[in-house]
Amino acid sequence: MHPFRLACRNTLSDIRGQGRYRTFTPLRKHADRFPVFTTERDGKPCDITVWSSNDYLGMGVHPAVIEAAAQAARSMGAGAGGTRNIAGTSDLHDALEAELADLHGKQAALLFTSGYVSNQATLTAILRSLPDWHVFSDAKNHASMIVGVKGAPATVHIFAHNDLADLQAKLATAPAGAPKLIAFESVYSMDGDIAPIGAICDLAERYGAMTYLDEVHAVGLYGPTGGGVSERDGVARRVDIIEGTLAKGFGCHGGYIAGDVEVVDFIRSTASGFIFTTSLPPTTVAAALASLRHVRGDSARRTALFARTETLKAKLDRAGIRRLPTASHIVPVHVGEAALCREVSRRLMDEFAIYATPINYPTVPVGQERLRLTPTPLHTDAMMDALVEALRNVLPRDLAIAA
Amino acid sequence: MHPFRLACRNTLSDIRGQGRYRTFTPLRKHADRFPVFTTERDGKPCDITVWSSNDYLGMGVHPAVIEAAAQAARSMGAGAGGTRNIAGTSDLHDALEAELADLHGKQAALLFTSGYVSNQATLTAILRSLPDWHVFSDAKNHASMIVGVKGAPATVHIFAHNDLADLQAKLATAPAGAPKLIAFESVYSMDGDIAPIGAICDLAERYGAMTYLDEVHAVGLYGPTGGGVSERDGVARRVDIIEGTLAKGFGCHGGYIAGDVEVVDFIRSTASGFIFTTSLPPTTVAAALASLRHVRGDSARRTALFARTETLKAKLDRAGIRRLPTASHIVPVHVGEAALCREVSRRLMDEFAIYATPINYPTVPVGQERLRLTPTPLHTDAMMDALVEALRNVLPRDLAIAA
Repeated sequence: MHPFRLACRNTLSDIRGQGRYRTFTPLRKHADRFPVFTTERDGKPCDITVWSSNDYLGMGVHPAVIEAAAQAARSMGAGAGGTRNIAGTSDLHDALEAELADLHGKQAALLFTSGYVSNQATLTAILRSLPDWHVFSDAKNHASMIVGVKGAPATVHIFAHNDLADLQAKLATAPAGAPKLIAFESVYSMDGDIAPIGAICDLAERYGAMTYLDEVHAVGLYGPTGGGVSERDGVARRVDIIEGTLAKGFGCHGGYIAGDVEVVDFIRSTASGFIFTTSLPPTTVAAALASLRHVRGDSARRTALFARTETLKAKLDRAGIRRLPTASHIVPVHVGEAALCREVSRRLMDEFAIYATPINYPTVPVGQERLRLTPTPLHTDAMMDALVEALRNVLPRDLAIAA
Repeated sequence: MHPFRLACRNTLSDIRGQGRYRTFTPLRKHADRFPVFTTERDGKPCDITVWSSNDYLGMGVHPAVIEAAAQAARSMGAGAGGTRNIAGTSDLHDALEAELADLHGKQAALLFTSGYVSNQATLTAILRSLPDWHVFSDAKNHASMIVGVKGAPATVHIFAHNDLADLQAKLATAPAGAPKLIAFESVYSMDGDIAPIGAICDLAERYGAMTYLDEVHAVGLYGPTGGGVSERDGVARRVDIIEGTLAKGFGCHGGYIAGDVEVVDFIRSTASGFIFTTSLPPTTVAAALASLRHVRGDSARRTALFARTETLKAKLDRAGIRRLPTASHIVPVHVGEAALCREVSRRLMDEFAIYATPINYPTVPVGQERLRLTPTPLHTDAMMDALVEALRNVLPRDLAIAA
C-alpha cells in the first residue's frame, strides 16, 4: 500500500475517534417554503426546518432573484465559458462590479469565484507585492484569510481576537518603515461578535498600516443600505479593502473585494486565483445583481432579521438555554464536546425535524463545540417555539438549564 | 503614500510597458446563437464570432442544460446557502458526485467551487499528509497545480514537459522509501499537446509513485463516453486521482476530483479549500448533472468537434498561417510578441468582428505569445473562412505566410 493510502486511513480513523467525522445531510431547498427543506427518511421525503443556512435574509429564494437566474440561463446559458480575460466577461459582470463598488463607496470592485478565493488570492497578492510586509491578523480570522496570509513571505503577527491593546502592542514592535496590513473581519461567524472597526482604523492610521476587512457575514445585513458594519459605523471610507460575499446575505454565489481603482487593478492583474479560473456563470451574476439592487433598498428586511433574532434570543433565554451572548444575528448555543454536539444535532433531526449543524473542530477550537443558529426574516414564532422545546429535550440538563 | 500603493502603481506601469496590460472585453452570450456573441460599439450592440470559448462542445447552451438550470432556480433558488457541511448539500450534489465517479470508473468523486480550487486544495492536502513527499510536476502544469504543490512542504521536482526520460531520471533520484506523486495534465491548454498517460503510469508503478491527472481540457471531449484522454487510452483505472471541470466541456461551472473512496474521503475531511466555502449553487449543479448525463451518450458531438477542428486546421494550413501543430481540439496560432498579439486581436475585433483572445505572459512564456483558437461543433465553414481571411489580413506577412 502506498504510504499516502495508509495516511488517509489513519487520519480518517483519528477523525472518527475524535467524534468529528462529518457526514453531509442532503437537504433539498424549496424556493416557496424556505426555511423548510426536505430530506429523505426511509425512502420518503420529510420536512425539516433549517436553522443553519447562511442565506441570512432569504434572498436566495426572492422571486426577483430567481427570475433573474432563470432568465439568464434561458438567454445566456449555464456557464461563462472562460476566464475573465478569455471570453468570460459579460456586461453583467461589469455591472455587478460597479454596483458592489458603489455599495461600499469605493472606486472599484472585483469578482471572485468565492469569498474563500477572494481572501486567499487577494491577501497573497498583496503580501507578495513587497519584500518586507508585516501583517497583523486577528486570531479568529477565517481559514481563507489564514491561507492567504500564509501563502506569502510576510512577517505574520496574530493579535488576540478583537483586542485593540494587543494589536497596538504588536504594531509598535514592527519596523516603522515596513509596509503593514491589518486583516480582520467585521462579524465573526462562529462567535457572532463584532470588531471595533473604527478603533482599528485609528490604530492603522497611527502606525501607517493598511486595513483589509472581511464583511462576508455582514454585507446585505448591516448598515442603512446593507454595506456592512463598516457602513453602519460610518467608517467604510477609512477601510482600504473591503471583502464580501454574494453567497450569504445576497443569497447567491461568489466573492469580491472593493477598494481604490489602482489597488483593485493590481489584484486583477496579478492574483493567480483571479486570473486563472472560469468566471462566475451568468445565472449567478444576474441573480446577484438583482439581489444587490433589491437588498440595498429593502431596509425592512434588515429590520425584520434583527427583530427575529431578538425574539429567538429572548425565547432561548426564557427557556434557560445556554447561548453565547452576541451583538449580531448569529446565535451560538454552547455544547462543548464533539461527539455530544453531533448527537444533539442528530436527535434534533431524527426526533424533531430540526436541522442545526454541529460545529466541531477544525471550524471551532476543541472544547468550544456548538450549534450555530441563524434565524432569518422567514423563521416564524412557531418555528422558534418548536426549536426551543426540542433543545430543552435534547441538551444535557447542565447546558439546557443555565445557572 | 503607503508603499503598497506605490507598488501597485509601479507594477501596473511595468505591465503596461510590457504590452501585457489586460482589458476585459464584455461579451454577451446568446443561448440561441452560440458562438455568436454581442458586444457594444459606439453604444450599439454588435455581433462577434467568438473563437476563444472553453465551452468546447457548446453544452452551456444546450436546451436540456438551460432548462435544468432554470428549473433549479425556480424550485430551489439562486444559492446553496452554506458549506457542504452546513446545510449546503442537496441530493443533486450527491447525484452529481456519483455520476462523476462513474464517468471515470472511480469509487468516489468530490465537487469543488472551481477546477482551480480542486487542484490547489487537493494537491496541498495530499502533500501535507506526510512529512517527506516528493512531487514530480510537469513543467507546463497549470497555475492552480503549481500553487497547490507550492502550498505544501514537499520536495518539488519539475520535469521537462511530457518528457518521460527526464521524469524517470528525476524519479530515480528520490529516496526509494519516500512517498511520491506525479502531477500532470492530459491536454495542455495553451499548447494543445497530449501527455503519454499510460507511459507515465508505467513509470509511476515502477517507482511506486501515485498519479494525479488534470483532465480539465479533456473531460466531455475525449474517450467513448467523454471520460477524458485517460478513458480514450484505456488507462483511467491506473490513474489514482483524476481532476476535472464542469466549466469547459460540460459548459457549466465548478471542479472535481475522482478516486478511491478513502482518498476522496480524506480530501473531503481535510482540504481547507473544500471545507470552508459555500457549495455550488443548485442552478449550476442541476445544469452540470443534465450536461454530464447528456454528454456521456452524445458521441456524435465529440465526433463533430474533432471534424470541425480538422477542417479549421486544414483551412489555416492552406492559407499558410503559422499554427502550432497539435493532436487536440486546441489550435494555437503563433504571434510571439505581447504588444503585437494584443494589436492583432484588437484588429480582428474592430475590423472583422472576430474575437480571439491574445494569450500573453503570465499565461504563456514571453516570446510564445499567441492566439488560441477553440473551434466547437457549432462553428460553421463560413465562420472559419471569415477567420482565415481576417488572419491573413492582420497577421504580419512572416507569420501569415509560412515558409
